[in-house]
Amino acid sequence: MRFALRVNPDVFAETHPYISTGLREHKFGIDIRQALKIYKSVAGNRWLEPYGVSFHIGSQIRSAAPFGAAVERVSKLMRQLERAGIVLKAVDVGGGLGIDYHANGFDAAASVSKYAAAIEDSLRGFDGRLFLEPGRFLAAQAGALVAKVLYVKRNGKKTFVITDAGMNDLIRPTLYQAYHEIVPVKPREGKQRIVDVVGPICESGDFFAHDRELAPVEPGDLIAILDAGAYGMAESSNYNTRLRPPEVLVEGAQARLIRRRETMADLLAPETLAGMS
Amino acid sequence: MRFALRVNPDVFAETHPYISTGLREHKFGIDIRQALKIYKSVAGNRWLEPYGVSFHIGSQIRSAAPFGAAVERVSKLMRQLERAGIVLKAVDVGGGLGIDYHANGFDAAASVSKYAAAIEDSLRGFDGRLFLEPGRFLAAQAGALVAKVLYVKRNGKKTFVITDAGMNDLIRPTLYQAYHEIVPVKPREGKQRIVDVVGPICESGDFFAHDRELAPVEPGDLIAILDAGAYGMAESSNYNTRLRPPEVLVEGAQARLIRRRETMADLLAPETLAGMS
Repeated sequence: MRFALRVNPDVFAETHPYISTGLREHKFGIDIRQALKIYKSVAGNRWLEPYGVSFHIGSQIRSAAPFGAAVERVSKLMRQLERAGIVLKAVDVGGGLGIDYHANGFDAAASVSKYAAAIEDSLRGFDGRLFLEPGRFLAAQAGALVAKVLYVKRNGKKTFVITDAGMNDLIRPTLYQAYHEIVPVKPREGKQRIVDVVGPICESGDFFAHDRELAPVEPGDLIAILDAGAYGMAESSNYNTRLRPPEVLVEGAQARLIRRRETMADLLAPETLAGMS
Repeated sequence: MRFALRVNPDVFAETHPYISTGLREHKFGIDIRQALKIYKSVAGNRWLEPYGVSFHIGSQIRSAAPFGAAVERVSKLMRQLERAGIVLKAVDVGGGLGIDYHANGFDAAASVSKYAAAIEDSLRGFDGRLFLEPGRFLAAQAGALVAKVLYVKRNGKKTFVITDAGMNDLIRPTLYQAYHEIVPVKPREGKQRIVDVVGPICESGDFFAHDRELAPVEPGDLIAILDAGAYGMAESSNYNTRLRPPEVLVEGAQARLIRRRETMADLLAPETLAGMS
């Protein structure tokens, strides 16, 4: 059986505490200082073949340096293993490559080139399989949550744009204090206003943006909450008995329904009053 | 048509920012100082009948005083309205009555008695319908999330109890930094350990407790995460393509399945590859 170990290279990770992963105080992986001993034990087991090593230093990391540092540490481990006669055939460098959720000209190509260079430099001389898990980098920018404005409401000094989408549809702002760019689908004339963009759910945690400068919107307008392709639908819930929205795949000028809107029948399907046991 | 106004009495609410609701900077209701004007306008409309007033000062409030203060403010409003010839027939005092999530002898009867007394005192003389919304108070303690221990793992100085339930099943700890008591279903002999109780999901936000003193547990043991009856299943998701657990109603010695475990077919049911439009 092939054996791969997930190690914690314990490099600096510039990320939200909830999505950092590669430190010793986290539940994931094992301390890299234990790895040599474990691989030697695996090499001595007739049923196991030392195959690879993986790590995951965190999520939404915007610079290439921490990845380079982590691969350096793992390369050093692999050289130690080679001296002990153990040659690994695979390295999984995990995920974590971040995007820029702010609309200030994110250059994805430059970002991924630096990331690739950092890994290539640090893995130079490695002759095996390389696994990458850049899920957010691939998916986040590909998705937008489109919502309808229900009301625009003033409360004291604050203006609220209340939408038909809520925290159940996209929990990142309230769970990770995440920023998502928000734009009207069809812009109106007029000057920007400072607003809170909030959902219709019964708690103040139901928000998409606080004190955000937004182009003018009116009830019935559609807005797009951008970069919702990662950890959007995946973390959505039915809080407040809300039906999850449909998912639509857009290819050029074509739009294709790939997940229909949930129905109340979907929600109630698993429920039962039978089955006294 | 009957007309009820939700007002913000703007009293102190001792609660998490996400579940406080009754302040002017929140999206809910309207400033109570606007109420008199609005009721007068309603009274002059042949299609509307001024019927009631509601408020909601927040959630998980543990003392009766803020409720009393809020009802006082609303009572004062009603006296003003009466002087203007408008007699309301209903008061909705909202929800928000908290429970004690810590296992230190919470006296629910005493708590609810003080709550009732505060409302009764402040509403003395009111002759109409009283609505209450004490959802958490009724439901939270009635539910427990039962999970199986998958592993007990040491990482450096930390010990992790990893369960088959995750943040998708109960998001309160990670979303609200909420405390839930955790107990082994069948206690073992041995001394308590300081552990993190975490789920199997791919982020460090997937936890139920940090640095918690817990009776010894072994893989395969069941643990109960208590007071999960409110904002538990209601806020659950399918994050990591996880199937939500079944819900079992226990009545005395009888257990009845009231919601079956989700299946992969449930998850995929709304998905489709058809429908080019």
